[in-house]
Amino acid sequence: MENKLPTYLTERDGELWLTEDERENLKISYRIKNVIYSGQSKFQHIMILDSYDFGRMLVLDGVVQTTSIDGHIYNEMITHVPLSIHPNPEKILIIGGGDCGVAKEVCKYDVVKHIDMVEIDDEVVRVCKQELIDVSGNLSDPRVNFIFDDGVAFVKKLHSEYDVIIIDSSDPVGPAEALFEKSFYESLHKALKEDGLMVCQSQSPIFHRDIMRTSYKRIQQLFSYVNLYTAVIPTYPGGLWSFTLGSKKYQEIDFRRIMGRETKYINVEMVQRCFSLPQFIYTLLSDENAQ
Amino acid sequence: MENKLPTYLTERDGELWLTEDERENLKISYRIKNVIYSGQSKFQHIMILDSYDFGRMLVLDGVVQTTSIDGHIYNEMITHVPLSIHPNPEKILIIGGGDCGVAKEVCKYDVVKHIDMVEIDDEVVRVCKQELIDVSGNLSDPRVNFIFDDGVAFVKKLHSEYDVIIIDSSDPVGPAEALFEKSFYESLHKALKEDGLMVCQSQSPIFHRDIMRTSYKRIQQLFSYVNLYTAVIPTYPGGLWSFTLGSKKYQEIDFRRIMGRETKYINVEMVQRCFSLPQFIYTLLSDENAQ
Repeated sequence: MENKLPTYLTERDGELWLTEDERENLKISYRIKNVIYSGQSKFQHIMILDSYDFGRMLVLDGVVQTTSIDGHIYNEMITHVPLSIHPNPEKILIIGGGDCGVAKEVCKYDVVKHIDMVEIDDEVVRVCKQELIDVSGNLSDPRVNFIFDDGVAFVKKLHSEYDVIIIDSSDPVGPAEALFEKSFYESLHKALKEDGLMVCQSQSPIFHRDIMRTSYKRIQQLFSYVNLYTAVIPTYPGGLWSFTLGSKKYQEIDFRRIMGRETKYINVEMVQRCFSLPQFIYTLLSDENAQ
Repeated sequence: MENKLPTYLTERDGELWLTEDERENLKISYRIKNVIYSGQSKFQHIMILDSYDFGRMLVLDGVVQTTSIDGHIYNEMITHVPLSIHPNPEKILIIGGGDCGVAKEVCKYDVVKHIDMVEIDDEVVRVCKQELIDVSGNLSDPRVNFIFDDGVAFVKKLHSEYDVIIIDSSDPVGPAEALFEKSFYESLHKALKEDGLMVCQSQSPIFHRDIMRTSYKRIQQLFSYVNLYTAVIPTYPGGLWSFTLGSKKYQEIDFRRIMGRETKYINVEMVQRCFSLPQFIYTLLSDENAQ
């Protein structure tokens, strides 16, 4: 554990503030109670911070990834939607998801028999399991097989292996950049069974319109069905966040999968609602020249 | 127009930044191109700033109220939902709404014959009509009757006057504080016709849970029907924002009112879905002890 604080963590009037530096024209600063963990892994700088408004946060290279207060929104939305669409999701691949929140949600499904979780940075998993229990649940389900490897290299080798693939990536900078490239989506399509489906986080419809639109178009070109859905994640810039689902065969949601499940954000209505998009997103996805 | 900059507008490395100071533990900073207007009115400090990410913004006492980029989301949601529920909204009262964005949306309805807009601060209206055209549309519809008065005092005198009342208030601090009090909702109920309905912005479900819940409960006690709905407004803390609708008689939406309307955010689906809430909001609204 370092003593020296990274530049994005500053002390002002005896108070500690994390200022996300990812955006040029918008900075969000969080008042921090304590630095729980701070260390450099082979891939990125990792911190667990205890914040006043959001509880404990995972911060990678200065960018908030998930928090105790709203991490479940992202994890529930990226997990329960695909697992309510595939009728028999037995073998699951999670790419990324080092905070273990997605794996925790997937484990809520008895139908799931095996989960491969491919995360490049074992330090993130170790730290989150230890210090970010609200998100990771200190995951210890025997169905989860941790593979500490490069997700891109891992899926390249696969053919017709999985029912569902969930790509829980960070922003397309640093380690996660390759997880937004066309060749990666092609590998995913190949790695899925003939009736498989995939979902990825596709960034902000407000701040990353090009990235969102590009990943949507790429998935659309490869899969029989593509559907974009949204959720509101307070600690992500702009609040509104997008997920893109590509499916070879299934697109109907089985709402019985959602009913009675222990969730904080999703319910039957939210899953019904999440595919209804603001007009500007439809315009963006349909307009060839949209920026 | 002042030369001196207010404290929440700071220059760093030759760049101008607006840092919202409203929240104790979360600060959002916007990079600013130009100060278009800065002045003190009888009620508050008013600025129009040209920002890099959100275009021109109205900033009152250092808090972003509306912007060129996302102002329409708020204005469309607080206007088209009630005007699609009331079958014959001829006489409308807007309380607050100094940026004129709500009045602009209301004017899209031919069925509307008369709009009283009661705004306490005539300076806000003057400045927005002049410098925030994207939001105000430099509103000049003859149906709009501007009344520069205290909204609370104004509605107290009324009895069975309006079909729809829209409360477009700022946060419940400063001038807008009284617009969240029980006696004010009672006045609104009295000011509405026997089949009238009202809608107000009821703050953030994430950061202002008590305020949202309290205004919901107060409206619930007075009206036959109460419905809370949400929208995502990127420049509001947490993104997710709530609106509460109280109705004496009507609650069905007439979607023909929405179809084919020129809007950037709302469409039939969004209006259908906006009443579907995340599970934590249902829990919050139903739990008597929720904080």
